[in-house]
Amino acid sequence: MKANIERTEKKRVVIVGGGLGGLELAFKLAGGDFQVVLVDKNNYHQFPPLIYQVASAGLEPSSISFPFRRLFQGHKDFFFRMAEVKAVDAAGKTVVTSVGDIHYDYLVLAAGARTNFFGNKAIEATTLPMKSVSEAMQLRNTILRNLEKAETEEDPARRQALMNIVVVGGGASGVEIAGAVAEMKKNIIARDYPDLDSSQMHIYLVNAGKRLLAAMDPVSSARAERDLKALHVHIRQPQFATEYKDGILKTSAGLEIPARTVIWVSGICANTVEGLPAESIGHAGRILTDRFCRVKGVQDVFAIGDQSLIEGDEEYPLGHPQLAQVAMQQAKTVAENLKSLQCGGEEKPFKYRNLGVMATIGRNHAVAEIGGRKFGGFAAWVLWLVVHLRSILGVKNKAFILLNWVWNYLNYKQSLRLILKAKG
Amino acid sequence: MKANIERTEKKRVVIVGGGLGGLELAFKLAGGDFQVVLVDKNNYHQFPPLIYQVASAGLEPSSISFPFRRLFQGHKDFFFRMAEVKAVDAAGKTVVTSVGDIHYDYLVLAAGARTNFFGNKAIEATTLPMKSVSEAMQLRNTILRNLEKAETEEDPARRQALMNIVVVGGGASGVEIAGAVAEMKKNIIARDYPDLDSSQMHIYLVNAGKRLLAAMDPVSSARAERDLKALHVHIRQPQFATEYKDGILKTSAGLEIPARTVIWVSGICANTVEGLPAESIGHAGRILTDRFCRVKGVQDVFAIGDQSLIEGDEEYPLGHPQLAQVAMQQAKTVAENLKSLQCGGEEKPFKYRNLGVMATIGRNHAVAEIGGRKFGGFAAWVLWLVVHLRSILGVKNKAFILLNWVWNYLNYKQSLRLILKAKG
Repeated sequence: MKANIERTEKKRVVIVGGGLGGLELAFKLAGGDFQVVLVDKNNYHQFPPLIYQVASAGLEPSSISFPFRRLFQGHKDFFFRMAEVKAVDAAGKTVVTSVGDIHYDYLVLAAGARTNFFGNKAIEATTLPMKSVSEAMQLRNTILRNLEKAETEEDPARRQALMNIVVVGGGASGVEIAGAVAEMKKNIIARDYPDLDSSQMHIYLVNAGKRLLAAMDPVSSARAERDLKALHVHIRQPQFATEYKDGILKTSAGLEIPARTVIWVSGICANTVEGLPAESIGHAGRILTDRFCRVKGVQDVFAIGDQSLIEGDEEYPLGHPQLAQVAMQQAKTVAENLKSLQCGGEEKPFKYRNLGVMATIGRNHAVAEIGGRKFGGFAAWVLWLVVHLRSILGVKNKAFILLNWVWNYLNYKQSLRLILKAKG
Repeated sequence: MKANIERTEKKRVVIVGGGLGGLELAFKLAGGDFQVVLVDKNNYHQFPPLIYQVASAGLEPSSISFPFRRLFQGHKDFFFRMAEVKAVDAAGKTVVTSVGDIHYDYLVLAAGARTNFFGNKAIEATTLPMKSVSEAMQLRNTILRNLEKAETEEDPARRQALMNIVVVGGGASGVEIAGAVAEMKKNIIARDYPDLDSSQMHIYLVNAGKRLLAAMDPVSSARAERDLKALHVHIRQPQFATEYKDGILKTSAGLEIPARTVIWVSGICANTVEGLPAESIGHAGRILTDRFCRVKGVQDVFAIGDQSLIEGDEEYPLGHPQLAQVAMQQAKTVAENLKSLQCGGEEKPFKYRNLGVMATIGRNHAVAEIGGRKFGGFAAWVLWLVVHLRSILGVKNKAFILLNWVWNYLNYKQSLRLILKAKG
């Protein structure tokens, strides 16, 4: 099987993964001097920063998901293939996929990262990750289903466990989803479930570090903690989850929290690809590259985004943070370098420009650090909304998200609380 | 288990099923002189007339689905229970459900109908029904996934089967989904799948009767057939599907159609409830009632909507058609009769007022029959849009659906083409 793509005289760039990095690269190269093949296991791009809002019933999956074929309608010499990538055959310049082998002249690995359960299979099987739109929908279904069960549960201990929610992980994802479910509790549960005592619903945030948002300044951490406490989120740190069994989460500090909903956002590891040399795999599975994003030990293979780690940047000796803006800037660098190679030019090393980091905490609150300035509260929250609305693809999606946000803001009640299953 | 609902001095009405009939009844009774308990297996109401638009990627599931708890926020003495109803114990005046027994003073069965596969288990396991939002999402996923597979399929016969779509059933659902996928083919497939020859994609409508839309006038049937033919839908009638195996659908006329997507909308049968006397079950499982919607052979049990069949109405000797307006009008009758009983008044028999019937066929075309007038084309299509937009619940949903419709109309391209799985 050859995945049905005809060779042309153009050199072919195969991009594995249509996340923020892969998509940016495809946009920069499609319709130009290369034949571009984008491979993704889904038929749509998803926008990670807003996945937590799908999980907390604030946004629809379709508002943050974009079919690739629709995005690249009319681009010549662009091919999308929905497929799982099984291995790279660097000697044969071929990617082995579930729909056949695809030859490449240049290969760019941008397949991102997955939730890190640190090898704990029991926790992986019973807690809820939040890395994709599908997982967000499952999380939403679970929260709502457990509340339905709580309404008819006569045993107080079992009812308590059905109502409680534990978020494991104190990074941006953990802070954002904890804030969002706390808002749900405050504004929705009491009205929707009159038979439940919503003051008895407890939300815990278990963090292994000494402070939340470790990647940000301690000032921002303190702000986030204050804002979450105001939303009655119980922060438990520093301690990590050691076991989750029979609806009870145990932590390294000896805490036992009864909860039927445990959201696992405590870290990521890079998605793996077979066929790369062992020397090219670094910490948490990240693929090691030089400063030009070229993978160590192989020819014409690049890696960008969460899946990769650049060695040799003195400013970032442990690699760059796994953030959307890093992936997108690396995509730009690789696109320019590939174009430059075409006309015999030189490659430029990747240089990260930190545009700022932010995290939102429920309604009206966020923390932001931009160009050395740190701020929080309402101003940061509005900035967060503007930045994310600007970066989401498509006029219609912008309109729908804005409408949803304004509506929810004015009404204090999302109407997307559907327990919705969908097969195949 | 008692489903945790406290008795008050008010009489309790238990409504099984929150479709158009059950919901209308709950709205009319909630907050009044009864304690109202609504039981549904989903936590949301769904709007059947627009389910086909979810299946054809024109609308989002959330635009036509409404969480019951949200709809009844603030209503006193109203209870929602997400549960499967297992049986009725008429002697004990109790409904047996998956969350415990629920006592009733009055019981109203409004659990609707399900797809009728006429006992053919093989067809049930391999074809796609379209009665719920979940099923519509599965259908959408299947159509899109088969097109993805077709792009990389090298065998021409297998590719043809992946591209073809067969709709079995020539009623309103069949006509509407056939029109919608034909529009998809015309406006989207060619642009989204440049490697596929969309002229090679064939859509078949297999109808057991001699004409489409048998419930409407022959003039409307002829219009619908003309409009579907203009969209290149192959109508095959009168013939019925006899077998579906290895991707080939066989019909009673000896036709063999290779197709990996078979949509089954060829009839419905009433949802069954254990515990009712055998004499109360009629054609296609419908629960027989008198003209006051009271179920034959039991006390204080009513049935309305698709699940029921009124005997003794001379105008409708075979029962009323299984339509939204019948269910909603029966709900109104039962609500008024129950209120009347409370103050010692009399019950009135159900009298059906036909407000008109319509079906849409793709873009710009529909057929309608209202008060003896029959019309088609653009006028009927606009009327269809207005009627359905008016009847959908909620200002926000109206706004979102209108936005989607206007957007799709102007752009000829829906952007909801996501293959989206969601567990539990």
